[in-house]
Amino acid sequence: MPAGGSPEAPLAILCGAGAFPLAVAEEVRRTGRPVFLIGILGSSDPAIEHHPHAWARLGQFGRLVELARGAGARDIVFVGALSRPAGWLELRPDRRLLMLVPRLLRALRGGDDHLLRAVVGAVAEHGLQVRGVHEVAPGLMLPAGPLGQRTALDTDTADAVLGFRVLAAMSPFDVGQGAVIANGRVVAVEAAEGTDAMLVRVAELRASGRLRLPARAGVFVKAAKAGQDLRMDTPAIGPKTVESARAAGLAGIAYAAGDVMAVDAERMIASADAAGLFIQGYERERA
Amino acid sequence: MPAGGSPEAPLAILCGAGAFPLAVAEEVRRTGRPVFLIGILGSSDPAIEHHPHAWARLGQFGRLVELARGAGARDIVFVGALSRPAGWLELRPDRRLLMLVPRLLRALRGGDDHLLRAVVGAVAEHGLQVRGVHEVAPGLMLPAGPLGQRTALDTDTADAVLGFRVLAAMSPFDVGQGAVIANGRVVAVEAAEGTDAMLVRVAELRASGRLRLPARAGVFVKAAKAGQDLRMDTPAIGPKTVESARAAGLAGIAYAAGDVMAVDAERMIASADAAGLFIQGYERERA
Repeated sequence: MPAGGSPEAPLAILCGAGAFPLAVAEEVRRTGRPVFLIGILGSSDPAIEHHPHAWARLGQFGRLVELARGAGARDIVFVGALSRPAGWLELRPDRRLLMLVPRLLRALRGGDDHLLRAVVGAVAEHGLQVRGVHEVAPGLMLPAGPLGQRTALDTDTADAVLGFRVLAAMSPFDVGQGAVIANGRVVAVEAAEGTDAMLVRVAELRASGRLRLPARAGVFVKAAKAGQDLRMDTPAIGPKTVESARAAGLAGIAYAAGDVMAVDAERMIASADAAGLFIQGYERERA
Repeated sequence: MPAGGSPEAPLAILCGAGAFPLAVAEEVRRTGRPVFLIGILGSSDPAIEHHPHAWARLGQFGRLVELARGAGARDIVFVGALSRPAGWLELRPDRRLLMLVPRLLRALRGGDDHLLRAVVGAVAEHGLQVRGVHEVAPGLMLPAGPLGQRTALDTDTADAVLGFRVLAAMSPFDVGQGAVIANGRVVAVEAAEGTDAMLVRVAELRASGRLRLPARAGVFVKAAKAGQDLRMDTPAIGPKTVESARAAGLAGIAYAAGDVMAVDAERMIASADAAGLFIQGYERERA
């Protein structure tokens, strides 16, 4: 069986927030495979209704798997941010999800990766294989090399390599898909705040004078965690990342080739070119 | 010679910003050793004038060492934050500092620790030994165990131990004296923004609902970098740290015993007791 599962059957896409689910749906359709989108009420972009779809609450685990199976899907991808509920009650869990609670609670103590693995296992028991974006839409994964007109300078590459080392060191702690390095100095490390908040922080540190750097210095570095299950949490960059990196005064964006997907790569690259930023992929052995 | 150098001669204290230099001066005097404070114009607390003192600009390297030597000092401590100048010109370097520029520029690329080691070396060539707070005022270094009424729960200690592991992993990158861990999850890692900004970030993430935690959850973890030269950059906590940790909704503060100094320990502990936070030191083998 190919990496993407059963290509004749529709692919179910559980749609978190943001534009990524639609980008994946369109890329999968482009490869000739039908899709069935499951929107999360209050989270997903209403534009998912341009595709075959249904809506559910995140807590309706039984309904989610029945919708996917009912549409004939044997594979499912989870795309986009699914916000952590404040508690089980807010999630309004259905019976099937309630049965999973002890297992998920145990997994939660181990961090996001453990939780995600527990969810993958529970979904598989209902006859659905969880696939990764890199399997069903490999065309969205970004390659090695510069994407736009700019190329990283040697000093930028030195910062990028240091950044990949920082991210690798943070990997055992289930954190750290992003960092900002400038002139050999680790300026920011991403944890619960997410990429955009981290880049806003760098912009503010520069604006306040607490972080003194020449103009256009520093690299935003993005990679999957070592051993990260790409099926559940594909690192992604897009036009918004470029805008945040530009606002933070950075020279560019470095990513681990094959690990990171782009949403609207064309617009992202055009924005980077217009802003004079590089976006460059590094091979995993380097990254 | 004892660890603190020549105890009969006055100790020179180069005073960065904040209350730490005065706390060190008072503790050193309490031990019977005279002090000579060198204030940095625009940075140091004017209250240093209660002690024998002189003022200089940070760029007046020659004047700094002459003032210290002229006061009879053979040992010097650097205490409090010295802000990185935007460039050499803003520093208005004197001739002696200009001579050091190539050496410091080389060191700068290696991060703060390298820069600090270069400064220690340069100062030593002018007959002054750079000492650490832990050497000249060991009474300020915080011990193992709980400082106030509250004691860390087992879950807090688990978070603390995870935090010390995160800090150790970040140590090779010359970053990471602080992190926030909550329920086994790495919530924030400190880099250029500093402790207070990191704790404000955690408060904001909770207030916005992006970080969902029970009330009073999470531990701020503070340690020296592995192999950090304590002579130049002693990690410190104080009443402000307690206030920031309280505002971030944390359960308490965990630190590596012997690595971290307190300013105004009495007021810090009273604040923690009033807020219901623990402040607890962990032995290095555990931390």
